[in-house]
Amino acid sequence: MEKTWATLRQVGAGGADLHLDLTGPGGVRDTLTRALRDAVRSGRLAPGTRLPSSRSLAADLGMARNTVADAYGDLVAEGWLTARQGSGTRVAQRAAAPRRTGARRPAPPPRPPVRAVHNLRCGTADVSGFPRSAWLSAARRALAVAPHEAFGYGDGQGAPELRAALADYLARARGVRATPDRIVVCAGFTQGLALLSRVLRGHGVREMGVESYGLWVHQEVVERAGFRPYTMTVDDKGAVVDELAGRKDARVALVTPAHQFPTGGVLHPDRRAAVVDWATRVGGLVVEDDYDGEFRYDRQPVGALQGLAPEHVVYCGTSSKSLAPALRLAWLVLPEHLVGEVVALRRTGEWSVGLLEQLTLAEFITSGAYDRHLRAMRLRYRRRRDQLVSALAEHAPHIHVTGIAAGLHAVLALPPGTERPTVQAAAWRGLTIDGLTRFRHPAAPPSLPTPLPGGDGLLVAYGTPPEHGFAGALEALMDVLPPAE
Amino acid sequence: MEKTWATLRQVGAGGADLHLDLTGPGGVRDTLTRALRDAVRSGRLAPGTRLPSSRSLAADLGMARNTVADAYGDLVAEGWLTARQGSGTRVAQRAAAPRRTGARRPAPPPRPPVRAVHNLRCGTADVSGFPRSAWLSAARRALAVAPHEAFGYGDGQGAPELRAALADYLARARGVRATPDRIVVCAGFTQGLALLSRVLRGHGVREMGVESYGLWVHQEVVERAGFRPYTMTVDDKGAVVDELAGRKDARVALVTPAHQFPTGGVLHPDRRAAVVDWATRVGGLVVEDDYDGEFRYDRQPVGALQGLAPEHVVYCGTSSKSLAPALRLAWLVLPEHLVGEVVALRRTGEWSVGLLEQLTLAEFITSGAYDRHLRAMRLRYRRRRDQLVSALAEHAPHIHVTGIAAGLHAVLALPPGTERPTVQAAAWRGLTIDGLTRFRHPAAPPSLPTPLPGGDGLLVAYGTPPEHGFAGALEALMDVLPPAE
Repeated sequence: MEKTWATLRQVGAGGADLHLDLTGPGGVRDTLTRALRDAVRSGRLAPGTRLPSSRSLAADLGMARNTVADAYGDLVAEGWLTARQGSGTRVAQRAAAPRRTGARRPAPPPRPPVRAVHNLRCGTADVSGFPRSAWLSAARRALAVAPHEAFGYGDGQGAPELRAALADYLARARGVRATPDRIVVCAGFTQGLALLSRVLRGHGVREMGVESYGLWVHQEVVERAGFRPYTMTVDDKGAVVDELAGRKDARVALVTPAHQFPTGGVLHPDRRAAVVDWATRVGGLVVEDDYDGEFRYDRQPVGALQGLAPEHVVYCGTSSKSLAPALRLAWLVLPEHLVGEVVALRRTGEWSVGLLEQLTLAEFITSGAYDRHLRAMRLRYRRRRDQLVSALAEHAPHIHVTGIAAGLHAVLALPPGTERPTVQAAAWRGLTIDGLTRFRHPAAPPSLPTPLPGGDGLLVAYGTPPEHGFAGALEALMDVLPPAE
Repeated sequence: MEKTWATLRQVGAGGADLHLDLTGPGGVRDTLTRALRDAVRSGRLAPGTRLPSSRSLAADLGMARNTVADAYGDLVAEGWLTARQGSGTRVAQRAAAPRRTGARRPAPPPRPPVRAVHNLRCGTADVSGFPRSAWLSAARRALAVAPHEAFGYGDGQGAPELRAALADYLARARGVRATPDRIVVCAGFTQGLALLSRVLRGHGVREMGVESYGLWVHQEVVERAGFRPYTMTVDDKGAVVDELAGRKDARVALVTPAHQFPTGGVLHPDRRAAVVDWATRVGGLVVEDDYDGEFRYDRQPVGALQGLAPEHVVYCGTSSKSLAPALRLAWLVLPEHLVGEVVALRRTGEWSVGLLEQLTLAEFITSGAYDRHLRAMRLRYRRRRDQLVSALAEHAPHIHVTGIAAGLHAVLALPPGTERPTVQAAAWRGLTIDGLTRFRHPAAPPSLPTPLPGGDGLLVAYGTPPEHGFAGALEALMDVLPPAE
């Protein structure tokens, strides 16, 4: 048999083409019978579907008409097909449900004692605020003017349109010294950190200073790249960057200067200067994770550290908090000497970023929609933070909010020993929330001072719930806070 | 001075907020003067921009009004600002063009002797055929129904909607045995191959069989992951997979069964069976790169190898040829035993893929728009291939098209020794085109048989030019083909 595969035109599920495998042992008739049986059994040919006439299928497959008619006859006899005068040959209605080839039955997830209905856990913005229609408008405008070349593989450094828009935006909004040729677009901050870590390891750098409280996922990225993390103490003035001077192998430090994650402080001006001086002195690098720098409610945001020493600071920004994690769009602003290597790595194709989303974000920024969205979200988050502070004043005046009025989360200082029971009580109340201890670096020595007395704290990510869910989440939180002693 | 940063509301370029750095040595007045001067000099404050009154800026910054007025006065004196009765203080018109901080002046690229106006080089589809409005419609429908959670970090394996759509599509159109839980969405085939290579190296596999003619970028990915490539001979029946049996360390083979790249043959049925048997026997894996399997013009496409042995074949598909490389969307269909590890690696965040594009593609497929687009592009590419064959018959009947009528490129067998001069002549004629030798694996031994007599050939990527550019490209090609001997 010359043809080993065939397609039944537009008879598959949804009226689309259906592919038949005509390989395998046996004669033509047996092979066709088996292929059709498989298609019916697997659901690819849906119950009720009308098959082509034996004449037309035979012509399509280059077989004798009788061969097809015989195969149809076999399957009617077996009950897979039905044949009625005037309505042709159809897939029988009782044909089995789709077979899932080798599908594993996933084990049911362990059930929490109470279904979580409220979420105040850090990690995402209020994605119910994602500006769907403004985003689609920007996509429409971006696609309308994009040249054909924009649909190719594109510039591995990031779409030039987006890099230009970011350079302008970051300079005016965050005080970053940025030019488009210094910017590399990444699929999220984690990817950017992985890229950078890979390049720096290639330079022989082995130790990276990290904050002793931070996001594990970042620390894991750094360690996967082969770095030994050195944990800096975090206190109410941010990371104690002076400790870096005592580490002769440290050349890189990863910090969150505008809003320490998770403790919520701002890096003290003296320490801003000190960490930049350190990097300049040792020929090192500060990696500035500016994950939520757009959100400050009591005053203007503290500008990027990068502005102080563009050749010794990598600025890392993201759309995950300002728009939505789903976009997977972030950016690095690099010192000149690192641009070439990072771009070369980024261009290998393993670190690809969708181009159309990049063009859409560029249009979203340059049209002013990004500024408008940020203003709206700033108001929303600020209102929630104010509600949190008021609720505490009324229901739990003994519990204080630490850290600055910024970002998407606040930190509550808890009486020593109450963090774990509070998180557990919250789970029983249907509220998902994180304690501060969860973010303590596993490599931090036990002697390390804690940023809060006793180390107990609660992270209230008021930015996480959808707009309609915040009041309920706040009420649940008030119910589970430890009472005054 | 308490405030170290300030924002001028909506006076920056484009009427947006402008950020001023008020750190640094010196008194308040000097600092403000310097910050404003920097903003003007760098272009962040555009010529003609009206500054806020000294009273309102002073209130905003918490400074004495006189301090601001003095700073303004200094800058008027220096010529950066102008002050006119009734029109306030403005940025002077002659203010300098934006300074590019540390920008390198890129060296001009080496100029080709003639500007390339025609492109018949492989690598991309005809992106002028990208269905912009159908894609936007799909995006609108997808975003309209997406739950808020869809804008979060999402499922690291790929959006469930897309995996379900792909499972159905791949089963009916390519004969792939796919269930959504076996599919991993990647940002392009290269990323998928990198992920897979990383996992397989972790299993201790060291040697990978690759086709001796293929895409270097893929071979580089494999080598970066630590694989030693073993190059299989390619002849007119595809890769000589029997050679794998003689390599005791080989456990993985990367092949292009439906349409060998670049030689254009189809893997012979005996070899299809043989490579699957080999993988089953040695407990190994075939990686099936189905980069353009949707496009066949003379008959139904040869179905996926994966259908023969789903536990020993990884099926790799992509939207780069069927839609556009800009999407950076591809998919792996994995044997059950590899799913967990690949997904775990994919979820680390280093290999992120934008979620909104995934939802859009899911909607594009399930709505039938993908089938419609493929039918239209199949007609377009088929017509171009027919035109190429006709033009050769008329202008260069001594030159033969080898390979099957499929995909986005054809291979012309050239008289021995004429490949390089032809590619050069094409460059002078303004036509970019690749010779076959370019795709020979650098590690292939010199003794390796060539797929064409003498090894000389030309790859005509008739799928690359935009619709209006194909006739001109074809004409240029006819001009430079070597004459009959």
